[in-house]
Amino acid sequence: MSKILIMTENKSEDTEVLYPYYRLQEAGFEVEVAALTRKTVDLKFHLTVEATKAIDECRAEDYAGLVLPGGSAPEKVRLNANALKIVREINAAGKPIAAICHGPQTLISADVLRGRKATAYPGVRDDLKNAGALYEDAPVVVDGNLVTSRRPEDLPAFMREFCRLLGV
Amino acid sequence: MSKILIMTENKSEDTEVLYPYYRLQEAGFEVEVAALTRKTVDLKFHLTVEATKAIDECRAEDYAGLVLPGGSAPEKVRLNANALKIVREINAAGKPIAAICHGPQTLISADVLRGRKATAYPGVRDDLKNAGALYEDAPVVVDGNLVTSRRPEDLPAFMREFCRLLGV
Repeated sequence: MSKILIMTENKSEDTEVLYPYYRLQEAGFEVEVAALTRKTVDLKFHLTVEATKAIDECRAEDYAGLVLPGGSAPEKVRLNANALKIVREINAAGKPIAAICHGPQTLISADVLRGRKATAYPGVRDDLKNAGALYEDAPVVVDGNLVTSRRPEDLPAFMREFCRLLGV
Repeated sequence: MSKILIMTENKSEDTEVLYPYYRLQEAGFEVEVAALTRKTVDLKFHLTVEATKAIDECRAEDYAGLVLPGGSAPEKVRLNANALKIVREINAAGKPIAAICHGPQTLISADVLRGRKATAYPGVRDDLKNAGALYEDAPVVVDGNLVTSRRPEDLPAFMREFCRLLGV
């Protein structure tokens, strides 16, 4: 069974973790959640999800795609060197990457946005622009293997496009 | 655009409302949430969803399908006469009904479970049996137009089967 990786941390937006988590299982994928350590991840509204892997244990080649949810989690994830290595390698392999809300902050730190169309939570749009992204204010923006959205309300469009790229 | 109705109330399980809410939008449906009154519904972990209709304002013929999430919401919904009328009419029309966790309590009160295979949260399984259901302990049980599941972890199987019945 193909695996999808969700890299997140405490205080991520609950639905931005759990909607992809359930949706990709529904589509037949094994979904692995990784955080800085293996633990029960305590989301913004205190829903939880099990991180069965530490990010340092993950290898890009094991995954068919990557999801980067939002909230304040990306400010922790983007500081992890292996998280950025995984983003770069999955991107270089052309495998689908989905980032929503503040999730694109990790794409900024991995420096994979230059010259690419992307969106994010409006509060970080200037950071996307400074990282070389072609920022658009839209529910979902697709550029090659990259799918980005702005907020939980965009989740239907976000997962529709990500599933399309995954071929399911 | 075809419409799906979610009937719920405060303290419903957040993901059991929001996963179907986003998932059915992703599939192209208009999703209408109804509660006892029009309001911002305050879910168990305090995520919210807008109930744009009061249940008393809803008519079965306007919807292609019905979702009944769990939590303690069904103990309120099942006391509303129009909620039960809607369940009976949607069921009589053979349109898909999806109920998860405590959601099947509303099916009990509508008396639509006699002789039908169904599941629910284990804490109410005896009530299903007493209502004439053929109870099964499985992630998802489908009997004709009726899809039932036990808990949030079953959401992938629950929505996979409901979407199949809806033809999407």
